[in-house]
Amino acid sequence: MRLSELAKVSGVSIPSIKFYLRTGLLPAGQTLSKTQADYAPAHVERLRLIRALREVGQLPIAAIQAILRAADDETVPVAELLATTHAAMAGPPPLEPGAGRAAAQALLVEVGWSLPAESPLIDSLGVVLQALHDQGRPIDAPHLAPWVRAAQDAAAAELAAVPRSGPRSATGGEIAVGAVLYGQLLTQLRLAARQALAANRSS
Amino acid sequence: MRLSELAKVSGVSIPSIKFYLRTGLLPAGQTLSKTQADYAPAHVERLRLIRALREVGQLPIAAIQAILRAADDETVPVAELLATTHAAMAGPPPLEPGAGRAAAQALLVEVGWSLPAESPLIDSLGVVLQALHDQGRPIDAPHLAPWVRAAQDAAAAELAAVPRSGPRSATGGEIAVGAVLYGQLLTQLRLAARQALAANRSS
Repeated sequence: MRLSELAKVSGVSIPSIKFYLRTGLLPAGQTLSKTQADYAPAHVERLRLIRALREVGQLPIAAIQAILRAADDETVPVAELLATTHAAMAGPPPLEPGAGRAAAQALLVEVGWSLPAESPLIDSLGVVLQALHDQGRPIDAPHLAPWVRAAQDAAAAELAAVPRSGPRSATGGEIAVGAVLYGQLLTQLRLAARQALAANRSS
Repeated sequence: MRLSELAKVSGVSIPSIKFYLRTGLLPAGQTLSKTQADYAPAHVERLRLIRALREVGQLPIAAIQAILRAADDETVPVAELLATTHAAMAGPPPLEPGAGRAAAQALLVEVGWSLPAESPLIDSLGVVLQALHDQGRPIDAPHLAPWVRAAQDAAAAELAAVPRSGPRSATGGEIAVGAVLYGQLLTQLRLAARQALAANRSS
């Protein structure tokens, strides 16, 4: 199909498609002439993946590039793909490196989650803990137990659906997009739960 | 204190402070002369609040404005402040209104969370459910039970710490910032849990 049809079928605008082609998120179509290219159903699939990461996951382009690069490379093992996806989702590195890092490390030890010392997730968690502490909220493991338990329950359910190994090619994108979409699911469900519980108790 | 000292004490740059003054997020200082103003400790507190919402919560300025406007107005009841905060955190309205809305409504009924029909949270949840469905993931209540439970547990723990009523002035900002920070806490803890569980099963 031509570019205009690809836009129509995928629901992604032509300027956006051109942008994804330029940044390499979307592979080039088959060249037909100097100004025309042919796109396959795989391009529609790819655009659906990019849309999920961009519009629902609200991830920046750089994060999507990092995730899709790992998802596309079949030599990257599933565990490595997950680590890349988690790091990209954790957000930009903190403005104050080290803020709350010790608190994050202490909490991770206490709850028994072992992360490599160089994981960016430790610093991202540390920034939140520091901010909570600055607001006078307790950040010791007993006080944080409800969130730790909630996070663990969600993570366990998500990983149960991720294959440990096996053929990667078809599943790389699905694994990455699952990590992102279930994160947004939990975020939106928490807001809905807060809203429903708050309305309940004030009525 | 003068602007330069406010920047130093709060750790917020002078251009950022001037931007917050222009947008009304930070109230003006007491005018000393045509080019100088005096800032109080309350300004430092306010900047700490804005930083938490902006840098940790990664909220856009418009969302922070909506949240702080409700937090500042002591006539706004706690339940209303929470609703405003939740709506601002749910993100921009969906590009395709109605996408997944029916699925979201069905899920909310099934889990017993009652939201007003006009709540923007229904559409935000609908967008995620639609995206999951597009990726071939099941979105019926039994399959989503682990995330529903996790969201409910986190929400219950958070609301237990929010006063039902009482003096609002001092607590408005704290209530709003709590909603945002505990959201980021759950997001980052989930990534850490996924990473730790993934590493565990591949070793």
